[in-house]
Amino acid sequence: MVSWFRRARERIEVPRLTPRSDQRATERVDLAELTPTLEEFLALSAYLQLSFFESLGDAVSQAPTTQAKSVVARVAGRTLDKHEKLAAEIARLGDDPVDVMQPFVEAVERFRLATHGAEWHETLLTCYITTGFLDEFFVRLGAGLRGEAGERAVAILKADSGADELVSLLQAGIDADAKLASRLAMWGRRLVGDTMLVARSALVMGADQDSDEARIEPVFTELIAMHTRRMDVLGLTA
Amino acid sequence: MVSWFRRARERIEVPRLTPRSDQRATERVDLAELTPTLEEFLALSAYLQLSFFESLGDAVSQAPTTQAKSVVARVAGRTLDKHEKLAAEIARLGDDPVDVMQPFVEAVERFRLATHGAEWHETLLTCYITTGFLDEFFVRLGAGLRGEAGERAVAILKADSGADELVSLLQAGIDADAKLASRLAMWGRRLVGDTMLVARSALVMGADQDSDEARIEPVFTELIAMHTRRMDVLGLTA
Repeated sequence: MVSWFRRARERIEVPRLTPRSDQRATERVDLAELTPTLEEFLALSAYLQLSFFESLGDAVSQAPTTQAKSVVARVAGRTLDKHEKLAAEIARLGDDPVDVMQPFVEAVERFRLATHGAEWHETLLTCYITTGFLDEFFVRLGAGLRGEAGERAVAILKADSGADELVSLLQAGIDADAKLASRLAMWGRRLVGDTMLVARSALVMGADQDSDEARIEPVFTELIAMHTRRMDVLGLTA
Repeated sequence: MVSWFRRARERIEVPRLTPRSDQRATERVDLAELTPTLEEFLALSAYLQLSFFESLGDAVSQAPTTQAKSVVARVAGRTLDKHEKLAAEIARLGDDPVDVMQPFVEAVERFRLATHGAEWHETLLTCYITTGFLDEFFVRLGAGLRGEAGERAVAILKADSGADELVSLLQAGIDADAKLASRLAMWGRRLVGDTMLVARSALVMGADQDSDEARIEPVFTELIAMHTRRMDVLGLTA
């Protein structure tokens, strides 16, 4: 899975004489040129949310207590809500959500299976880490979408996915079992590679790869820093 | 699983001189005396909805197409919505939903495992048949609850659980595979026994068993007639 979108991009080169400080501010959201179409953006993010819902559904079944089951079901409901809202945005464009999601199914399914935990806490960590990373990534990528539909898509993705609830459940597990922390730290490291690959594959790469990489790098550096903070919250080394 | 609620009931015997026609009308909802407390009613029905959500979550994972996955996820969302609304009603009574659901967990889980399909279409039939039967049963039982909270609970349970969507998916499977119909007909017969047991266990049985049975029988006869109609919709013999 390298990129779904490797197509020629029109580039209009204009001389830039922006002052340094402005330039740095622009760099933060400089994925704009790598942003897929609104339809593709919605399709991939909608199917990812459905895939998160599937993983959380497993976590509902595996939950060791009624309390945990109830909490995870609520979190699952949030991702389902995001999926349905993103699918509704696709329908609003006059497209069939299933048709436009189809090209992404195989790779997302491969991602879901690769990040499927061996037991409940690992599955929870997967949900916490991958939804956190990818929601954040799509919010940034969505800054390159124009118009109200793009803003709505970003607002949908920004909504709370229940990270705090997942952290509480994970923390309780770690507190009860010292060995769990090191196992989850390892699992977290496993997850970030696959998650970054999915994120990268959503970018529209142009002909000038070096230039694209230069745009991508600072964004991913920042996303990894946020991933590290997510692990820190649990006292785990990223 | 016979009854969670076998406790003495206060019965005030008053001479009845109701005209025949009125009496028959009363009989239709004559589970009133067998109705558990509002809290118990909410707890069992809330946990059953969570259990339906769990089964539908399995069906999301097993779905053979993106279209089917998307539809089943939406149906799962409806049962989750019912669960959360019923849990919110429990919280409104000042109780902790998890605490009051706990006594029902073991038996509902046993029911869920006993009615777990061997493959996707069986799981779908389970969801269609058991949610249909039990929602209908709880709506009738809920007629015995007093006050606005009881009315709200019944309104929550009456909401659409996505039966039409499940029927469409099942019908498509039956149309594509002639053997599936007879397998599902057999599975449907298996389901109804376990489902009736769960329904019965929600009734508060008094000291006078014969009198209770006389009340229960016509209601279950009607529920089974509705089950038969549900199977008929799919062209399956109940």
